[in-house]
Amino acid sequence: MEPKPFKAFKAPERILLGPGPSNMPASVSQALAMPVIGHLDPAFLMIMDEVQEMLRATFQTKNKLTIPVSGTGSAGMEAALANFIEPGDRVLIGVIGYFGERMVTMAGRYGATVDRIEVPWGQVLDLGEVEKALAKNKYKLLAVVHGETSSGAQQPSIKEMAVMAHKHGALFVLDTVATLGGIPVEVDARDVDVAFSGSQKAISAAPGLAPITVGARGEEILNKRKTPVGSWYLSLSEVQKYWGKERTYHHTAPIQLNYALHEALRLVAEEGLEARFARHQRNAEQLWKGLEELDMELLVRREHRMATVTSVKVPPSASHDLVKKRLLEDYGIEIGAGLGQLKGQIWRIGLMGHSSQRKYVSLVLAALREILASG
Amino acid sequence: MEPKPFKAFKAPERILLGPGPSNMPASVSQALAMPVIGHLDPAFLMIMDEVQEMLRATFQTKNKLTIPVSGTGSAGMEAALANFIEPGDRVLIGVIGYFGERMVTMAGRYGATVDRIEVPWGQVLDLGEVEKALAKNKYKLLAVVHGETSSGAQQPSIKEMAVMAHKHGALFVLDTVATLGGIPVEVDARDVDVAFSGSQKAISAAPGLAPITVGARGEEILNKRKTPVGSWYLSLSEVQKYWGKERTYHHTAPIQLNYALHEALRLVAEEGLEARFARHQRNAEQLWKGLEELDMELLVRREHRMATVTSVKVPPSASHDLVKKRLLEDYGIEIGAGLGQLKGQIWRIGLMGHSSQRKYVSLVLAALREILASG
Repeated sequence: MEPKPFKAFKAPERILLGPGPSNMPASVSQALAMPVIGHLDPAFLMIMDEVQEMLRATFQTKNKLTIPVSGTGSAGMEAALANFIEPGDRVLIGVIGYFGERMVTMAGRYGATVDRIEVPWGQVLDLGEVEKALAKNKYKLLAVVHGETSSGAQQPSIKEMAVMAHKHGALFVLDTVATLGGIPVEVDARDVDVAFSGSQKAISAAPGLAPITVGARGEEILNKRKTPVGSWYLSLSEVQKYWGKERTYHHTAPIQLNYALHEALRLVAEEGLEARFARHQRNAEQLWKGLEELDMELLVRREHRMATVTSVKVPPSASHDLVKKRLLEDYGIEIGAGLGQLKGQIWRIGLMGHSSQRKYVSLVLAALREILASG
Repeated sequence: MEPKPFKAFKAPERILLGPGPSNMPASVSQALAMPVIGHLDPAFLMIMDEVQEMLRATFQTKNKLTIPVSGTGSAGMEAALANFIEPGDRVLIGVIGYFGERMVTMAGRYGATVDRIEVPWGQVLDLGEVEKALAKNKYKLLAVVHGETSSGAQQPSIKEMAVMAHKHGALFVLDTVATLGGIPVEVDARDVDVAFSGSQKAISAAPGLAPITVGARGEEILNKRKTPVGSWYLSLSEVQKYWGKERTYHHTAPIQLNYALHEALRLVAEEGLEARFARHQRNAEQLWKGLEELDMELLVRREHRMATVTSVKVPPSASHDLVKKRLLEDYGIEIGAGLGQLKGQIWRIGLMGHSSQRKYVSLVLAALREILASG
């Protein structure tokens, strides 16, 4: 019984305006095709150091423990919870959409008693409500989502929440999967203890790595754990021995994904964070204006909109699936579907990293106009 | 505070004769550089189906649940244990080297009581001892390593162990990280319940994916679990909903790593499994002969040697580190160091996947001869 070889796959060219992945700059794609080398090769150890340093700059932090977890953004989320939760801990999770829900599920898997503070998808948490919730119980950590990919809402008052969490003795964990590299994250300035992200949204590297950064309060919790971290693969103290001075083998790093991340972070640095944030904001505002000119309604009110993912309501006259399909088939444009409680009700248009370009804004608006007019 | 851009990285060309990763065929490298597309793009869904079908052929199984886990081989190992262990279960792990030890650690993290059956590194488990151990307690699973990357030993009697495990009501889990694609694994013929591997050794795809296959007994355990799997990211029932007909979003698959795996599995199928196994065996035997002609001693006795990784003792006159360094710097050849209890005592020479070539055998022998002669 010998395997049957399929034909070689030729990937189609897409303009990726969904909630991730985003398009990659040519030099990032080319970095993936460089020769593979060993995970303990001196040349690889050098780019590991550079990746860590550029990640710190991108997270806007001096945190020593700042590395890419060898998995997707969801692995980063799990690492950000699993490492700080011990069975029986009580945690508070802010749920403003799908990814907040996911944190609730994950925290439960690691034995936490989970309380949630929740608003309808598309809205954001109210600071006063968070304070009230924090006061009710003794929490090990408060985790919130900075930019909710499922709704397009951006949580404001991150610094104030971090301060509140600390006042109540809780660690502050922030999901920056949809914001890092596109919207200011400011880990140090906002006193965020743990932030995690993915490689493939506003960073525009290849999917499969999850940058994470851990500050002093987080490191202290890691060092004082009474039980080992529930997941061996995601245990940061052990992964850090490979990324740190010891270079102790933990697992074979995804070599080429780290090449791509290195190149993508280099491009972030070349552009400059401020210029990059301004580009994301400018293109998003252009998109919002254009959608409103098409008489389409945005899900999120102006002041809570995230520059990287915009959610727009499906007009009563249009078919959610058909418009998405025509965009892909006739224009080569991918946009995102509604998830969970917003399934079928919204489309999600991402302008992230290399996909945040003025020409794509004009194109997706033109394509939507044509498709909606043709019924 | 703006990030500082480092120079673009240029990966050096290496001949990878270590215990992984192996060199990649040009078409696999090129596959990585293809345009990124969405994880729910119809074109991506198609290659997901083809990857699953080719993985089944490579594992030599008809198991429906056969997918690449989105992490390295170690994530595959953790998935193979975490999904089948519930807190309080008793498990038996065969330890013939470093990766058996790792399974002991991981099983413990998921709440198992772990018994071990152990031999000095370089040796293999005795069937009678395994039977005795299985008879002592009621075990949820027996896990063993097919090819121990840390020692170069290949465990024989896999089928007999599977039968024994089943007789005693235990699931049989097999680590095929160092064997899949290079040495017959025969999941169905040997009645293996769960086998996992990595993408980067004898398959010669890019590191970062972990193929896993689960048979009917394993699926039954998944379906009958009383507690959710400890890790959300590695929970196969949920990952399977994305890889199966439902296509339910779980995480953003590492798109390009799946391109590379697709191409690498295509090349496996084109070569044919039997031809591929013969090539690995032939080149390994050539290496063993050459090393013995250089008066070097192999760690593992002939009948237990693995074709993919050979461990050779460091001669008393030679420096473990210096020889390794000269191979890398003067010849561009990577070989592996001794790990754990064999640290400094052996080198490990891998001939895996695209790195298993006659010319590399001749080259590494010539280089070793020159370096050892020059003192």
